[in-house]
This record gives sequence, C-alpha cells and structure tokens, in this order.
Amino acid sequence: MEYENHAMQSLKTAAHQNGPLCVGLDTDPSYLPAQVVAQFASPEEAVLAYNKALICRMAEKKAASCFKVQIAYYEAQGLRGLEVYAKTLAEVKKVGLLSIADIKRGDIAATASAYAKAHFSGDFEADIITINPYMGFDTLKPFTEYCKKSPAGASKGLFVLLRTSNPGMSDIEGKELKAGGRVLDAVGSELLALSHDFTLMYETQACSPVGAVVGCTEEKDALALRNAYKDIFFLIPGYGAQGGAARIAATLLLQSGGVVNSSRGILCAYKKDALCLTKERELTLQDCADAALRAALFAKEELLSAKRALEEAYA
Amino acid sequence: MEYENHAMQSLKTAAHQNGPLCVGLDTDPSYLPAQVVAQFASPEEAVLAYNKALICRMAEKKAASCFKVQIAYYEAQGLRGLEVYAKTLAEVKKVGLLSIADIKRGDIAATASAYAKAHFSGDFEADIITINPYMGFDTLKPFTEYCKKSPAGASKGLFVLLRTSNPGMSDIEGKELKAGGRVLDAVGSELLALSHDFTLMYETQACSPVGAVVGCTEEKDALALRNAYKDIFFLIPGYGAQGGAARIAATLLLQSGGVVNSSRGILCAYKKDALCLTKERELTLQDCADAALRAALFAKEELLSAKRALEEAYA
Repeated sequence: MEYENHAMQSLKTAAHQNGPLCVGLDTDPSYLPAQVVAQFASPEEAVLAYNKALICRMAEKKAASCFKVQIAYYEAQGLRGLEVYAKTLAEVKKVGLLSIADIKRGDIAATASAYAKAHFSGDFEADIITINPYMGFDTLKPFTEYCKKSPAGASKGLFVLLRTSNPGMSDIEGKELKAGGRVLDAVGSELLALSHDFTLMYETQACSPVGAVVGCTEEKDALALRNAYKDIFFLIPGYGAQGGAARIAATLLLQSGGVVNSSRGILCAYKKDALCLTKERELTLQDCADAALRAALFAKEELLSAKRALEEAYA
Repeated sequence: MEYENHAMQSLKTAAHQNGPLCVGLDTDPSYLPAQVVAQFASPEEAVLAYNKALICRMAEKKAASCFKVQIAYYEAQGLRGLEVYAKTLAEVKKVGLLSIADIKRGDIAATASAYAKAHFSGDFEADIITINPYMGFDTLKPFTEYCKKSPAGASKGLFVLLRTSNPGMSDIEGKELKAGGRVLDAVGSELLALSHDFTLMYETQACSPVGAVVGCTEEKDALALRNAYKDIFFLIPGYGAQGGAARIAATLLLQSGGVVNSSRGILCAYKKDALCLTKERELTLQDCADAALRAALFAKEELLSAKRALEEAYA
C-alpha cells in the first residue's frame, strides 16, 4: 500500500468528528470517593474500573476525540499500577479512539530508542506520546523513526513540550536567547523543520506527525504561538482544573488545530455535579462516571462554541 | 534523633571508601551472549541474573560506590521488565550500596508528586533519582521534599540534568541567554540556591542532597563547570563507551567530587576481555560477570590515578 496514515492525522480527524476534547486519565485513587474504592479488591482495581467506565461512555457519546493517560499516577502505584496503565491503553484501543501516553520522556541515543520501543510497542503501546526535548534534538530521532511511513501498520505521533502551563515555564522555556527568541522558539524551529521533512514523506497529509504541547494559560502568548506554528497540531493542557479559559484554548484550536486536555475537571466532576450532590444515597462508580460524561459533554460544547465565536470574530 | 543523613552524603562517603565508579545497569538483553540468554526462562530472567551477579561481585570487591539503573531498558521490556527493575533495585539495597534510578522524569505539580512517590517509595524505591528541569524549577519541589530531614528514615537525593554528554546538548542546554550565561547556568543557579537552603537544614553535612548530571565530554567545559559549582556533587556520564576520557572525568571529581558512570563498558566487557576471548568453550553468565568485574576494577583505578595526577598538578 502506497499511502499510510499516521496517528496525528487520525487524531486530527477524530477531533473534527468528536470535537477537540481530550479526556485526561490522571486517575489517582484518591480522586474517587472512598466508599467507591472500598468496593474493589484494591485501589488499582477501582482505578481500572473507573477508567473503563469513562472510556466506554465517552466513546459511546462521542464526547472526546482521545484519552491522555498520565503515566506518573500509575507509576506511583508500582507494578500493579502499571498493569492498570497497560490495561487502560488497551481499553482505549478497544473502543477505537486514540491514546496519548503522557510520559514526557527524553534521553539520548540507545536510551531514547529503549523509551520509544517501550511506549510504541508491547505492553505500553500508545498511538502518540509526549516528549521532553531538553537534552537536544538528537534525542528526538529515535522517536520520529516510529512516525515514518511503515508497511507494518499505522505510524505513531509525538507531542513535544513547547510551552507548558505551569508558572515555572519562565525559568527555562520562556528565557530570552542571546540570538533572539525564547528557548521555546528553538524547540519550535526544530518542530517546523521536522514538519517540513514529514510533508515530503506524507504528501497527501494535512499535518505533521510531530505536534507540540502548548498550555492555554496566557492569551497573548497563545495567539503568538498559534501564529508562529500554524501547521503544527497542538496538545493543549491547562484548561479546566488548572485554570485556563476556553477562549485561550480556542485560540490554540485555530489554524492546524489541536486537542484540549481536561483531567481532574472530568475525573472529579462528581464533586461539583448537581445530580451527584443531591443524591440521597452514597455515590457509586456509575454515578461518578455519569458526572464525568456530563462534564465532558459540557467541556466539548464550551470549547466548540468558543472556537466558533473566534472564527466569526476573525472572519 | 537530631541528625539524619541524606542519600547524597552517603553516596559521597561511599565514593570515598569504594572509589568513584558508578556501575550503570542499562542491561538490554542484547548485551548478553545469545547462548547465555537462552539458558534462562526469558530474556528478562537473564537480565535479572546478570544484574544480581554484577551487584554481588562489585560489592564484594568494593569496585563501585553505587549502581545507576537506567529504567528505559526495563520499560522497553514492558511489565516483566519493570519487575526486573524493581528486583534489581532491591538487590542493590541488599548489598548495602546506593541506587541511582536514572529516570529523568520531570513534570508539574501533582504529577511531579506522583513521580516522586513512584521512585522514592514502593516497588521502585531508589536512593537517588535523576530529574529533568526543563519545565521549570517549580517542578523540582515535589522531589526536594523527599530530600528534607525526616524522622521516617534516610532522606533521598536528586541529580538534576545540568550538562549532558550528547552532541545535542548545544540545542538547548548550551544556548547563550540574553541575560548572560547559558541555559544550563540558569539550572546551575537554582542548584546553588537549593544547596544554600539545604546547608541550613543539614548544617553538619558536607554536600547538598541535590546534585547535578555533568557529562565528561569536553575538558574546558568540565573545568568551568567544576569551578562554577564547587559544592555540588556530580553524576558524571560519558566515560567509557560514550567516549569520554578519564582525565576529563577526573577534573569533575575535584572539589565536592562525584561519581563516574560506566554502563556498556562494564556490561559488555566480555566482548573485549582477554580471558573471555581466549576461552575454548562458550561463555557463561559467570564469565561475563567476571569480565565486568575486571573492567570495573580497571576503571576504578584509572579514575583514581587520573584524579591523583590532577591533584598533584594543582597542588
């Protein structure tokens, strides 16, 4: 077959069909009501059951385009946690949606190859992973190898950290360089170069398999980054529980677009959900999952209407 | 108890007693002869047996001060690989030496806390971990919490990426800042500030629990960094298989000192070991481990004599 799809293009298509919401499965056992956790053999089993319920509901109602699974929360539970992580990724695959493994790995040469193998095949196989570029652009190569056209199946995608949503982003990412621009622009230039290389490989495709993580925390910066990297698909954290606003997220959804992550805002939706708050019995896992779905559908609509408003304003 | 030790000070003491060699257990199954791997139920079992043999021999002969376990090689083998990773860390603990988990994690807020919990407790507990500071200095805090004095036991240590040993270090770490210095100096300044804070906490201690990763690839840079960060303990990669020289490593061992990692130079020593090369039968796991011990003792002596030569030159 001449033409092969890659995961970033599939994600762009999914975002077009299901909306730009990415549901973040940063599922710490403490995010669930204690009585719900107590109904399972272990906290890890409760997390898995909750993840599965969320994945099925979101897929059924087309509330989300993808799931971002933050591996740190599973690593924190040791080997059993990572078993749940693997099963969660498998469940996402089962419902036909895309998985973003939020692993933020980064290392050199053979070690980077080992990480690429770890997260693009085997127990922890995901469609797209997040990458930390700090050690230099040679560290990206073992990962971009998996983004190339392959007769073996769909190629993978990467989201490289560009502008994160924490205040500390000014410590390194935001520092002004002597040669002009900020540190993050050095990363951005590399992403544009990679995008150019991949355009030649995937001539019929609309986006590069290498996207960028851009937090939605500052409107001016969001607009500048969106304009500087028009063709790059974004993974957008910082919306919802982290305090980012829909309008900033929508700014980042213009041009090549992106997906907007919400984790705790959805996982812990039951804490603020009117139907849950007025229940006269103890909440069940299903109640929590129902609240999460309502929050996801709300977020999806909020993002889509914010985007429409911006598009009209710019039209 | 008023006084509590922390892992970095214990490492400094161990380096004084056993020499500065850190044996890197980046044990990919392909590093072992195929017939050795074939004798085990799985490649993961072979890796575990080799790691155990190395850890015991190095401890017995005081060839090394510590072991650096590169988690990427274990992640690449999935859940079974991570089980071997956990057992390897446990084995290091059993022989009374220190473990450095080379994980290069880095993330924000609650996610960083999850990583800290993952690698400073439970299945994957290590004494010291490596950290990527790219996302900003707020991301270090959940890790430094574990470095504080605690009645619960020995506190932990960190090695923060400062100047890595790959060519790509010039892409970000080595970039000149508009405000002066390089990006890595912004990280270094933060390490000095942390060191100051910890000096007040551990007044009788000789070093900060927060060290730095400084590759031994360029002599001029090594000397500059050693002088700029006199009080910081270094983890020094790039010696041996990566091409760094003993003299550059020795430069970095001056002042507050450090430990020098060698991974493939030791793990794959059997490939260049005269006794192994002249064996008339197939190599066994024990042959490989014996060759690794010889290589480690050679490296230890090479590093110690290079350091003595420098100390005499500077005296």
